[in-house]
This record gives sequence, C-alpha cells and structure tokens, in this order.
Amino acid sequence: MKRWQDTRLHALFGTQLPIVQAGMAGGPTTPELVAAVSNAGALGTLGAGYMRPEAIERAIHEIRAKTDRPFAVNLFIPERFSVSCGEIQVMQSQLEIYWRTLGASPVEPVLESISFTDQVDVLIAERVPIFSFTFGIPNATTIDLLQEAGIVLVGTATTVEEAIRLQDAGVDAVVCQGSEAGGHRGTFSVPFERGLIGTMSLVPQVVDAIELPVIASGGIADGRGAVAAFALGACGVQIGTAFLTATESGAHPAYKTAVSSAKAEDTVLTAGFSGKLARGLANDFTRMFAAADVCPLPYPIQNQLTKPLRQLAQHRGDTDFMSLWAGQSARMSRQLPAAEIVQLLCAEIDCVFNRM
Amino acid sequence: MKRWQDTRLHALFGTQLPIVQAGMAGGPTTPELVAAVSNAGALGTLGAGYMRPEAIERAIHEIRAKTDRPFAVNLFIPERFSVSCGEIQVMQSQLEIYWRTLGASPVEPVLESISFTDQVDVLIAERVPIFSFTFGIPNATTIDLLQEAGIVLVGTATTVEEAIRLQDAGVDAVVCQGSEAGGHRGTFSVPFERGLIGTMSLVPQVVDAIELPVIASGGIADGRGAVAAFALGACGVQIGTAFLTATESGAHPAYKTAVSSAKAEDTVLTAGFSGKLARGLANDFTRMFAAADVCPLPYPIQNQLTKPLRQLAQHRGDTDFMSLWAGQSARMSRQLPAAEIVQLLCAEIDCVFNRM
Repeated sequence: MKRWQDTRLHALFGTQLPIVQAGMAGGPTTPELVAAVSNAGALGTLGAGYMRPEAIERAIHEIRAKTDRPFAVNLFIPERFSVSCGEIQVMQSQLEIYWRTLGASPVEPVLESISFTDQVDVLIAERVPIFSFTFGIPNATTIDLLQEAGIVLVGTATTVEEAIRLQDAGVDAVVCQGSEAGGHRGTFSVPFERGLIGTMSLVPQVVDAIELPVIASGGIADGRGAVAAFALGACGVQIGTAFLTATESGAHPAYKTAVSSAKAEDTVLTAGFSGKLARGLANDFTRMFAAADVCPLPYPIQNQLTKPLRQLAQHRGDTDFMSLWAGQSARMSRQLPAAEIVQLLCAEIDCVFNRM
Repeated sequence: MKRWQDTRLHALFGTQLPIVQAGMAGGPTTPELVAAVSNAGALGTLGAGYMRPEAIERAIHEIRAKTDRPFAVNLFIPERFSVSCGEIQVMQSQLEIYWRTLGASPVEPVLESISFTDQVDVLIAERVPIFSFTFGIPNATTIDLLQEAGIVLVGTATTVEEAIRLQDAGVDAVVCQGSEAGGHRGTFSVPFERGLIGTMSLVPQVVDAIELPVIASGGIADGRGAVAAFALGACGVQIGTAFLTATESGAHPAYKTAVSSAKAEDTVLTAGFSGKLARGLANDFTRMFAAADVCPLPYPIQNQLTKPLRQLAQHRGDTDFMSLWAGQSARMSRQLPAAEIVQLLCAEIDCVFNRM
C-alpha cells in the first residue's frame, strides 16, 4: 500500500485508490467507464440523476457484468418546484430564438417526473455498494432504508454548513465540491452564489468542522491536484472533467474535444440549460442566454424545456448548443482509456510526493 | 534549510521562507507589520496603492528602521477612465441613503489623482528590494527603469493569459491570485467575472504555461494550504487575510474581529466600494449596494466617492459600512503577533509534510 492510499476510504469503499470518478449525469458515465475506473482500482460512479429506474437497473447489471469491484451510483435529491403554464410558454418562446439559430423547427418538449423513491428502490434492491448524491439530503426514512441495505452513503457539500448537515443526517463521507468543479453546483442550503467556495478554502474548513472522511472535488485533474487535496486534509479526491474525456465516456466526441482542447480556464456558470447553476465551457447557448437576461425556470422544468434543443445539437455534433459541462481545469484533461488516466494519476501522485 | 524552502525564491527575494505577506492597501500593512513579517523570515509587503509618494517614502524609512531584511512594496497599475459629472451626482445621491442609515450628513468627497510614476520614482530612489503590482503591467520604460535599479518585479495574474503576458513583459515572478483571495481582484485582461479561477485550477495551469517562479495566493491561511500550493507546483505562497488579523496590522480592531470570527466561508464580491471587484465579508453596505442594483463608477472615482463614508464608519468602529476585505478562508485567520503567525505556518507546514 502506498503512503497516500487512505485507510479510512479503503475501509469504507473497499477500493485500492482514494480516487472517485464523479457521477456526471446525462451520458458520460457509461457502464464501460464506471467498470473501467473501478477495475483500475479507483471508484467508478454511474451518474444516474436523469435515468429512469429501469435504465438504472440495466446499467447496474452491465457494470456488474464488467467488474466485480465496488462502484457508486449518484442521484439528485429532488426539490419542490412550481411553475405556471404561462411561464413555460414565455420560456418556450425564448427558446425559439435558439431553434431559429439552429435552422430547425422547435420540437415539443416532454415534461416528465422521475421518482427519486423509485430510483432509490433500485439501488436498495440491487444492493449497490455506494450511493452518492447531490442537491440535498435524503429524508431520514430513506437514509434508514439505505443504511439497512448496507449501502455506503456519500453526500455533496459546497459549504461548511452543508457538510455539517450531511454529517448530522448520518452519511459516511462528504464530497466537498469547490467552485472550480464542472457541472451542476450541489448547493442546497444557501443561494447558489453563496456556495462558490474555492477548493483551497472549502476543504480545510470542512475537515475542521466534521469527523467524517472528506473527499475533495473541484479543479483536481492531475496528481498535483490530488496531492494538494491530501495536504488540505482530504482522504480522497473526486474527479469529473478529467474522466469525461476518457475513451469509455459517453460524452459526444465533439464535447470531449472541446473540453480537452479548451484554450482557457475560464468556464462560465449558467442556469440556462437546466434551471440549476452549473459550470461549463462558454458557447452560443450560454452567451445568448446571458445576453437575453431571462430568469430560467426551476429544475427540472428548464432542463426538460431545453432537452430537445440539446438533443438536436448532440445529433448534429454542434457544440454551440450542447451543455459542455467542464471544470476550471478542463484543459488539463486527457483523451485516454480510463485505466490509463488512473495509472497516470497514480504515477503523478508518486512523482509529486518524491519532489516534495 | 528545510526541504520546502524554495531555492528559486530564496535567490530572488533573499528571504528564508517562501511566504509572502500580501500588500493589503488601505491601512493593514503598517511598517510594523511589514518589518515583523520580514524579521520572521518571510517577505513583508507595504500595500502602497493608495499612498502618496511622500507617504510611501516615509513608510519605507520606517520599515528600514525596523528591519534590515528584504521587503516588498505593492502598487496599483493605473487604468484610463472617464466619468461625467452627471454620473458622479447620480452616485452621490445613491450614497446619501447610506449616510442617512448612518444618521450623518454626507461629507463632500475629494477627487484626487495619485501619480503612479511618482510612486515608482520613490521605489527607484529608495532602491526597494522587491516591487509587486496588481491590476496590470507597467509599461516597458517603467519596467526598464525598475530593472536598472536592481528591483525584483512581481506581477499578479488571475488567468493563465495574464501570467504569460507578465512573463513576456519581463517580470521575475508571478503571483497567481485564485478566486478565494480577499480584497481586489487583480484581473486586467478579461472582464472581472472571467478572472475568478480557483487556486486549485489556476496554479498548475500557470506553472505549465510559464518558466518563472509562481507564488500561489487565494484561500491559503495555514500550513495545509501552503503545502497544497507547493504540491500544485508553486514555489511560494502569498497570504493576505491571515496577516490582516496580526497584532501589528493597521486594520481596525472591529474589522480584525469580524474577520477572525467570521462564521462562514461565504464572502461576497462587490465593486461598490471602489469600482473594482473585490472580495470581503458581507455587511449592510454590500447588501444595500447589491439590492440597489446600481452600476459602480470606475476606479478610483467610486473609491473616492465612498471614502468619507468608510472613514466615518472606521471612526465609529461600525463594521457595517467599512470595506471588510477578506478571503474565503477568513475564519482560519488568527489574532496573533505576525512573528507567531509565521512560526505557526512553518510548524504546520512541517506537520503536514510529516503526516503525508
């Protein structure tokens, strides 16, 4: 065992390495990616937030067919929302501008509910080893059921207060999501703007405030970031963007190229795609949405309204209307098989330890 | 020499320790603080951005009377601005609300210019060992003059592009200011919002892009942050907020207490005090300014217009109308003599190295 392999995380997750592949919802985390990461000794995560229960079940079976190592499933904690039909109409007419820019006729969006309870039932029935979640905390009954099933619980915090609330709720470990992180902000206890704490600040303050193992995320893309996180007191690291570009990732090839060839570290924060604030590469959509200065509808409505548009863009390989979620270290990511990314990370971590 | 003492920074600065006290302008960096930090083996910095040339000269003499160690002086690179009298009147009537809240009659602000050239002339005449700057890059003539005087030049970058531009201009080292940092954002090549890169992301990307020694800043308040910065590839660290609360700091006692007893890590970004975006603790001023949704005038006009208000607040010890600049690790700062803060940092750095 290497000196940087963490005994607490090893005991909790049963993985060799203190490296977690983030549960990037919406396509990147194919069963192939999850299994490849877990087979390489890290923890693969299925980003299942948008998936129907039966699709989650199928994906879990596929993961298990490819690996006997531990893996995680990540879900979104639902929030109450209320939207009027009038508001939906106004947003749809806004979105027509984007359809026109794409030279296509608007496709009618489908508003559908995904039952968190049904999703959780699958995780319990399947006895998934690890359940990670974001956007909040499951209620006490759900936590009890998951714990009774022997499932390890990992919550996501963007502030110290959120970390304390997760600990109080009985989770087993906390992911600290620094402001550098790509994709959706996990913030649930304060307005999104107040949950933008840099990893360098957030991690030591959370480590000081809770007893649980802390996993750092946000801006960590190579061995330097991982060792920095260990120095800050984290037991492990969660890495998203640097796995998004993996060969096995289901992200669109044009999206992968946009991420790994990003010329700058200045991604943008937008709620225009989904209704929740998220970080990604700037494109025509984010620029037009920011310029229009309209208020997005709440999640998941906004997400469902923009879905047909994003699907068309995806179909065409047009990165200007896809959601290009990426963290501030996007340009450090590498288009390689996941196992090689994990091996490189380990080699770099060793190298940083030897240098210091 | 400890293994974490950096030979490149030692050669450049002549200091024992790779720790720089940030040049916090507007009061905190008294000659006592600068000298105490330098005497402790780190690099003290006089934050002279707002100071008249003769005051800078006086302060340098006072620092030299207290230490024979190297120290730095930090200045602001001026930017062109243009404001109409009408705009000034509109802002002054806005500020009347704050005066009323304070139960005081508005004091007429003084609009005055401070000549950067005259400030630089003092640094050259005094042969200060190190000149650090923010908000841009001095022109080629000024850089030549400073270099001829044997002064070490340290620029501030908030993006990789800014770091490259500083290297091209001939500086000797670059401070990377992550988004966690307190006080003014040094951003000069992009809109302020695009210069908010977390330290964890910014530092390795800058290290990869330039040949110069990189000094990390933003969110570093104890030994954990310092070792994290070294892991990211930085040669040294610049620490602001954690020295703001030092006994020798000229910050108002109520300001120091507000910083070191900050209950949360969620500071706010505001341009309301000075016209340039800066991070500090939220108070009545920042809340009222944000709620009023008015556009601040450019620096230094906005700064001069709000100065009488801040002076009254300072005089009364009313933290609700002072500018409480602080980084996202504010609550980790300690009210101790500067030498003890430096000693604690070193002990913690050793401790983190031993733990890892």
